[in-house]
Amino acid sequence: MLRQALHELTLATRGRDFYEFTHAVAELVGQSRMQTGLCTLHLRHTSASLLIQENADPEVRRDFERFFARLVPDGDPLFEHTAEGDDDMPAHVRTALTAVNLSIPIAAGSLALGTWQGIYLWEHRTHPHRRQVTVHLLGE
Amino acid sequence: MLRQALHELTLATRGRDFYEFTHAVAELVGQSRMQTGLCTLHLRHTSASLLIQENADPEVRRDFERFFARLVPDGDPLFEHTAEGDDDMPAHVRTALTAVNLSIPIAAGSLALGTWQGIYLWEHRTHPHRRQVTVHLLGE
Amino acid sequence: MLRQALHELTLATRGRDFYEFTHAVAELVGQSRMQTGLCTLHLRHTSASLLIQENADPEVRRDFERFFARLVPDGDPLFEHTAEGDDDMPAHVRTALTAVNLSIPIAAGSLALGTWQGIYLWEHRTHPHRRQVTVHLLGE
Repeated sequence: MLRQALHELTLATRGRDFYEFTHAVAELVGQSRMQTGLCTLHLRHTSASLLIQENADPEVRRDFERFFARLVPDGDPLFEHTAEGDDDMPAHVRTALTAVNLSIPIAAGSLALGTWQGIYLWEHRTHPHRRQVTVHLLGE
Repeated sequence: MLRQALHELTLATRGRDFYEFTHAVAELVGQSRMQTGLCTLHLRHTSASLLIQENADPEVRRDFERFFARLVPDGDPLFEHTAEGDDDMPAHVRTALTAVNLSIPIAAGSLALGTWQGIYLWEHRTHPHRRQVTVHLLGE
Repeated sequence: MLRQALHELTLATRGRDFYEFTHAVAELVGQSRMQTGLCTLHLRHTSASLLIQENADPEVRRDFERFFARLVPDGDPLFEHTAEGDDDMPAHVRTALTAVNLSIPIAAGSLALGTWQGIYLWEHRTHPHRRQVTVHLLGE
């Protein structure tokens, strides 16, 4: 019979960077003993993102950071909302351009991720933050 | 026992702008009497977005609008699909760069949003439109 | 009573382009005989996207391609991760700027898509690929 479970993950960041937490989500799925289902992640912040991306090559994350730093420059004179720092409004824009929700099916008792897919918290603020991710599991 | 409910929200826009409707979604969650669950929103259009963003400071929304107007300019000669107006193809691109689906867990009988998170309809067309959001609730 | 089903779709691409597969998803929903529910799609790759967009006018897809080719140029000297080709890192960035998950409610036995909404696989690599989409259905 279908059932659900709700968890909260707290991730400490050391400023702007990618933080993989695939293992923490996989552990919750394993503990649930659900064989088939759906795992939904929601990040409760407006200046960081959830991203599924290549987990093999660290160059990929450096290129991502360089691309987004050029696309949404810190301190861009276009921005009026600067009271919380040069990186604040760019952090909001980066968040809108990516995602704060992810939904990943559960198959054969595991997250149905592709071979190269890892789940990352992408911190967009330059200072360290504590970030909360709500994890909803549905399945049987 | 798990159950579900389906609702349709109609939002009238006055042209390109942000329209917060967190309260309307929260009301549906409250009426459902679900304590734990998942709330999924789907916008049935290709030229407007659903966005979770900061609901405190109106400067943030003005900066968003300025950034996207520069990134995807109305009347850009790059675009061939212009029969419906200078803002039509930019509206499709803005939609693809953001989202039309959101999935937010329900915890302790409420949407598990962060302190600063509000749910917005972001209208990308310059003329007023009626926009439909389908709301799926799952929980118990 | 609520139940779920899990399916895997394999889509063969002929390189960078849009591939509509709304009909394949609709067929799974029809076979499930679910009247009300939620359909979640997850693409198991990091260099292609799932996109809901206008299915009427092929100009729209050509304009999308031109816009993204300008925004994230192949062979951009900014990128360090080039071992797999000039289009590899741009494919990852295009994927991050769009989505790999979609959640669409099921209403009256069908996907609750808008009149103009189609579901596309957007292949970002220039060479042909086989892409896998996991489809989770929940409903009754």
